[in-house]
Amino acid sequence: MTDNQDSVLIVGSMALDDLELPTTSAKNVVGGAATYASMAASLFAPARIVAVVGEDFADKDIDALAKRNIDTSGIERVKGKTFHWAGRYDAKLQGRTTLDTQLNVFANFRPKLPKVYKSSEYLLLANIHPALQLEVLDQTDGPKMVFADTMNFWIEGEPEALAKVLARVDVLVINDEEARQLSGVRALPKAARKILEKGPKRLIIKRGEYGSMLFDEQGTFWCPAAPLDDCVDPTGAGDTYAGALVGYLAAMGDMSPIGLRRAMVVGSAVASFCVQAVGTARLARLGREDLAERLAMLERLMDFGGGPLLA
Amino acid sequence: MTDNQDSVLIVGSMALDDLELPTTSAKNVVGGAATYASMAASLFAPARIVAVVGEDFADKDIDALAKRNIDTSGIERVKGKTFHWAGRYDAKLQGRTTLDTQLNVFANFRPKLPKVYKSSEYLLLANIHPALQLEVLDQTDGPKMVFADTMNFWIEGEPEALAKVLARVDVLVINDEEARQLSGVRALPKAARKILEKGPKRLIIKRGEYGSMLFDEQGTFWCPAAPLDDCVDPTGAGDTYAGALVGYLAAMGDMSPIGLRRAMVVGSAVASFCVQAVGTARLARLGREDLAERLAMLERLMDFGGGPLLA
Repeated sequence: MTDNQDSVLIVGSMALDDLELPTTSAKNVVGGAATYASMAASLFAPARIVAVVGEDFADKDIDALAKRNIDTSGIERVKGKTFHWAGRYDAKLQGRTTLDTQLNVFANFRPKLPKVYKSSEYLLLANIHPALQLEVLDQTDGPKMVFADTMNFWIEGEPEALAKVLARVDVLVINDEEARQLSGVRALPKAARKILEKGPKRLIIKRGEYGSMLFDEQGTFWCPAAPLDDCVDPTGAGDTYAGALVGYLAAMGDMSPIGLRRAMVVGSAVASFCVQAVGTARLARLGREDLAERLAMLERLMDFGGGPLLA
Repeated sequence: MTDNQDSVLIVGSMALDDLELPTTSAKNVVGGAATYASMAASLFAPARIVAVVGEDFADKDIDALAKRNIDTSGIERVKGKTFHWAGRYDAKLQGRTTLDTQLNVFANFRPKLPKVYKSSEYLLLANIHPALQLEVLDQTDGPKMVFADTMNFWIEGEPEALAKVLARVDVLVINDEEARQLSGVRALPKAARKILEKGPKRLIIKRGEYGSMLFDEQGTFWCPAAPLDDCVDPTGAGDTYAGALVGYLAAMGDMSPIGLRRAMVVGSAVASFCVQAVGTARLARLGREDLAERLAMLERLMDFGGGPLLA
């Protein structure tokens, strides 16, 4: 890492999750959107986290992030317990039921950016209260690109604050059901047009095993997801995708339509590792060669030889 | 059409369907796998149908096929009523319930190939009893390529006859649930490996709005489906896809891995028109310019600029 590398600032949750999966279950798994996203982003660019943890979050788990090209000085540790989510996935790993949500220290979280963070060139606002996303935006010097996620809870409950976020976002990254809820429209192309009218310059719709779609001034791009035999735990895959995408963009500096498409393919590749083990386990030991191989697989998925199809 | 063009022989059902769709409903709609597939194939190559209809199937509907570069001399008209299917689609057009199936003249169908059909270079065995698929295979002179579809009913009820078909098929074209049922495996890559062990040289798995996947000696290809605002009626989309795919292959003569991938993109484009109106209405008036535009959309869906993603 050199001083002239663009940095990615990530704000979001850090969590201890209980996961009931079809093949296994696990308690107090280190998770949260900011954790997954920063681990993924740091594969490509220096990352910086703003988040809060409680007394039960182990030092070693923060140290593990710090060792990965992640600035953890913006992680606040306060009295109380870390944000806790418990969920159960269905047998197909397509649906999940929230069994328990304890906001704990997250309930009173007010993100405060360390001074060095303010000039971060890329900003990823993971899924938190839109009012907090705005507070973070206001504390920055104005990043080159702003990415944001959100969820059904804020779409329903905080439409005004969310509208202000949308007006200031370059790329909104949400899943298909959120896109349908936010637009009130089921068909994704029309839903996308309605959402882009709300402010975001570009929209990425995440569809899990079916890949992700970009809607921008060039049209539509469909990034496939790697077809896997061993999907174990989808938790954090969307955050991993967004983190890798922004990290790769920061590293390459190509914010063009093609640059964003390329970053999506990289996001998809990194996310495909995330799901292959519980929590961040696979992500933590992801090497360059594995990644290159998965990227080659994704490129083959889209390779029809090019050139005109109609004579 | 000239004599030296390769022809596509299609065997399958012709039907009169009752459709209950979210936005409309219609009775006695001309349908059946052979109808959709031959209309799609004939966009690219001469097509030949082997099928059976009853006294209630209008002459004008057969004439309409004959006007499209389709040889209808293999359509047998017999006493009784045409095969009839009635179904209701859910609001999302993802699931459907069969309300009624009347085999009628289809119950005693024994395909008989007109002499001129026997030398057809490409054969598409649409979804019928695997024993009948075998009878058709035995009547041909040995096509360059054999494509086959099947369904849950035969996978469950006729595993032995189906096994004989699979052993003689170049490309099996089925949907994801059929692939899972046939293999006993949920994860598609592993399901595909198990199915390929049963005989087919290549496997295409259709996934509706999520596109289609090819598993072959080159790896995996994921052909996207065109994202549409106006999906009206999915009936026959899979048969349209298969018909266009085989027709395009027959026209281009490129049976290589890339040739098949290109044909999938064309199949996807043509199928995307099929769903935009009830029955075959949109397919019937599909022109070259519309098709070229849809193909350009699909190419853009896969365009990430090429070249190495990792520096």
